[in-house]
Amino acid sequence: MTTPCDDSARELHDRLAIHRLVLAYCRAVDRGDFDGVRAVYADDGRDVHTGFEGSADDYVTWLRGKLAQFDGTMHLVGNHDVELLGDHALAETYGTAVHWGAPADDPARNFTSGFRYVDHLRRTPAGWRIVERRAVREWTRSDAGRLLAPEGIGPRGSRGADDPLHTMRSVVRRAAAGD
Amino acid sequence: MTTPCDDSARELHDRLAIHRLVLAYCRAVDRGDFDGVRAVYADDGRDVHTGFEGSADDYVTWLRGKLAQFDGTMHLVGNHDVELLGDHALAETYGTAVHWGAPADDPARNFTSGFRYVDHLRRTPAGWRIVERRAVREWTRSDAGRLLAPEGIGPRGSRGADDPLHTMRSVVRRAAAGD
Amino acid sequence: MTTPCDDSARELHDRLAIHRLVLAYCRAVDRGDFDGVRAVYADDGRDVHTGFEGSADDYVTWLRGKLAQFDGTMHLVGNHDVELLGDHALAETYGTAVHWGAPADDPARNFTSGFRYVDHLRRTPAGWRIVERRAVREWTRSDAGRLLAPEGIGPRGSRGADDPLHTMRSVVRRAAAGD
Repeated sequence: MTTPCDDSARELHDRLAIHRLVLAYCRAVDRGDFDGVRAVYADDGRDVHTGFEGSADDYVTWLRGKLAQFDGTMHLVGNHDVELLGDHALAETYGTAVHWGAPADDPARNFTSGFRYVDHLRRTPAGWRIVERRAVREWTRSDAGRLLAPEGIGPRGSRGADDPLHTMRSVVRRAAAGD
Repeated sequence: MTTPCDDSARELHDRLAIHRLVLAYCRAVDRGDFDGVRAVYADDGRDVHTGFEGSADDYVTWLRGKLAQFDGTMHLVGNHDVELLGDHALAETYGTAVHWGAPADDPARNFTSGFRYVDHLRRTPAGWRIVERRAVREWTRSDAGRLLAPEGIGPRGSRGADDPLHTMRSVVRRAAAGD
Repeated sequence: MTTPCDDSARELHDRLAIHRLVLAYCRAVDRGDFDGVRAVYADDGRDVHTGFEGSADDYVTWLRGKLAQFDGTMHLVGNHDVELLGDHALAETYGTAVHWGAPADDPARNFTSGFRYVDHLRRTPAGWRIVERRAVREWTRSDAGRLLAPEGIGPRGSRGADDPLHTMRSVVRRAAAGD
């Protein structure tokens, strides 16, 4: 990417970078990529979640244990807005996290939560990083017993190298190299 | 912000401003900030919601009464697209609104609705504002009896000055001032 | 739109175009606009969905049959990120699809699914188009028996010309022409 042509363009690029950082967190959690989770935080990054408060390093350890209880998670985020203050930023992101696991009637393994990520970010030499995240829990609702079998065969997600995101990336790279 | 360098950049800034206006509405409703709700409409702005049709002033009064019935709301929006026509614009925004309140088994206080905001916006001297909003109700589903207690302590939302968005904003401002 | 002023602006416009393409798909499905669905795919576009794998032409035929089973659908998307590789791109988009229909207690007509669209896109003379979509099904949950009647009259969606999106577009065009 070349240098943006003015301050106005720079603002758009800062906003894009911060949005993509929040998306990278969601993707990393859902794909079980713990290095990817750690990478969105600054070296001295901190996290405050329901049931956890501490360093980003300790958060990743805690998260690894939590995620092992589920067959899968999906962190869908919507509303995302940022206040830029030079090399610092405040971001608020709304989302819902769907958790599923066996047995399907266990409410501790099958629930959806509504949250807001309230993030303090800092521009570092490596790009924007989270200095502190406060994950606000808005509500939690049981999905126990509501799971339906898919109505046919088709692409399924995974936490491994066979997730369609990764296999499709190979397809796209081959196509781009062949042009 | 400096002036965008060309029409193409101007389009991106118009899109950003309109997106942020829609997000500002959601945040203001969820935080109980009624001045903030009013501010997204033009002086002569109108709103058509399920159960309401009238001026933005009257809408805010009506909304205040409705929101008092709930302990909290969360207006999560996703799909947002805009057609720009000079100083006017058409925006469509998809969302879901989660409502919760006591008692937890009351379906009138615990439900989720799916909606589309269909907005006519106008560029005013103060920025883009909503001239008329038609809030399309797609579906409403009961969440009665599904609420779970959070599985630990952690940040919680509020309609007051103690919401994590506001307390974190102070942290970020201090950090930015200290650089 | 004028030509973006540099490569950095070009990247933002590519990202906007791809995001709007994904949004156009959702809108077209939900409004029952099958020409609109076909238009987001390249001439040689393919789709892999739960229960379907084949050409975009055949997908539209299949989709038409599926959608006839529902009174309405809502494809809300959030997380959307793109990796640009020259004239090719990889996009991942998270979403939930709400389906409703009569009778309201039929789980085959009243359910919500969580998905990720994993798209290979190509820049064509007409703009970015989907070469191959893999629609990853994450989970499916029954909403049978949870439908509530709306708590008042107000705007409702449709698959016809009376949808509020279309009627409001006429309003905005008249306003823009009158300025």
